[in-house]
Amino acid sequence: MARKNKHKGGGNPNRPRFWGKHAVAAALDNPDRRVLKAWTTREAANFMQFPPDVMVTMAEVTDLARLVPHDAPHQGVVIEVEPLEDLWLGDVLADAPEKATLLVLDQVTDPHNVGAILRSAAAFGAIGIVTQDRHSPPEGGALAKAASGALERVPWVRVVNLARALEEIAEAGFWRIGLAGEADTDLKDALGPQRVALVLGAEGPGMRSNTREHCDALAKLPISDAVESLNVSNAAAISLYAASVA
Amino acid sequence: MARKNKHKGGGNPNRPRFWGKHAVAAALDNPDRRVLKAWTTREAANFMQFPPDVMVTMAEVTDLARLVPHDAPHQGVVIEVEPLEDLWLGDVLADAPEKATLLVLDQVTDPHNVGAILRSAAAFGAIGIVTQDRHSPPEGGALAKAASGALERVPWVRVVNLARALEEIAEAGFWRIGLAGEADTDLKDALGPQRVALVLGAEGPGMRSNTREHCDALAKLPISDAVESLNVSNAAAISLYAASVA
Repeated sequence: MARKNKHKGGGNPNRPRFWGKHAVAAALDNPDRRVLKAWTTREAANFMQFPPDVMVTMAEVTDLARLVPHDAPHQGVVIEVEPLEDLWLGDVLADAPEKATLLVLDQVTDPHNVGAILRSAAAFGAIGIVTQDRHSPPEGGALAKAASGALERVPWVRVVNLARALEEIAEAGFWRIGLAGEADTDLKDALGPQRVALVLGAEGPGMRSNTREHCDALAKLPISDAVESLNVSNAAAISLYAASVA
Repeated sequence: MARKNKHKGGGNPNRPRFWGKHAVAAALDNPDRRVLKAWTTREAANFMQFPPDVMVTMAEVTDLARLVPHDAPHQGVVIEVEPLEDLWLGDVLADAPEKATLLVLDQVTDPHNVGAILRSAAAFGAIGIVTQDRHSPPEGGALAKAASGALERVPWVRVVNLARALEEIAEAGFWRIGLAGEADTDLKDALGPQRVALVLGAEGPGMRSNTREHCDALAKLPISDAVESLNVSNAAAISLYAASVA
């Protein structure tokens, strides 16, 4: 899939480190991912396929711990990468099959949640996720670890204007369902055989009103009054499941 | 509900701190929870009902930050508590209605996951969760925050022997479904109108074989081959949802 920007060269200070076997193996396996450096224990090296152009440093577990945040479960391997180049929404929509699910996240900022959502999106075959550039986390180690490899596999489109993106999504034949606790309709009754975009807001505030106004329907998950809401990655996982069995 | 042990008195060194408005408000609201101390900003104090016997210290945001782990989102309020007293499995089973869902976790140790699972259990009206004492996290701030109040509301039974507990659960008329990626049956086809116990293992290793042997059926969630598994809290959320609509 075409990416918006050409490689930015060595001057880019944004070089996140990824850790954990699944996240690192997937990054090494992704032809669109530029891996700059790697540090690995001898044991972990046995499970990794480092391309010949990646500089690999053999290291002890304690050395690796200094490369990542405190208590990060690095599993013996750390890499330094360049973020993936941006994708065009139009390209992702153009590649969509007849039945397709797209996730749209409005101001979901926690990297663990976005990572877990990418993992669920891969699990249920979503064609991609869409976030607003200014209100979503950058690529980073915690996000990549939570995604367990899915960061490399699920198209993630960052847009400047989410409302405009939702218009483009509708033009591509997607029925846009916003998840909202106060909706009257259950999600499973709002789903059909058509292309669907599931729109989720941040926990607490939910979708912004301008996002909500760009949905074709609002729907809720059938939760009890005992809690205000679900964790957003759990809500996304259930929504993806419900769409996959609809 | 009766709890196994009487209050242990002031000598207990295990006094976790909880933070965040939902977690703290729910703890203050729980008659079974002994809250020892509280620290709050003036602003957050407006949203909290501190019982008269709790010692409350007014503090600045920066003081609160020193009471909790680095970057913990305390939202202006921190409390020090005693863990809840243990529950008996027999009591939870005896109180179960005709249609009931119970969650059994085998070696799920990440506190964020267990917290998020409690939150989903509350959302879908599960009658409780069961864990093995030696292989589950203690009560703590990160768990309570992820549970968003549900730690105070969902009965959590810790048992010494999970296999023995699964026998007791079967005797109470629960159909025990183990979630396993390699199962042939889809979860939604394994569910019925009966009482059900959903058994989930840790990510990666899954259920231990002795746990697996104590299930009546194994079932899988319909995920693609693109990922090995779901995040365990997402798998739990989907399973609880599937059970609630079965």
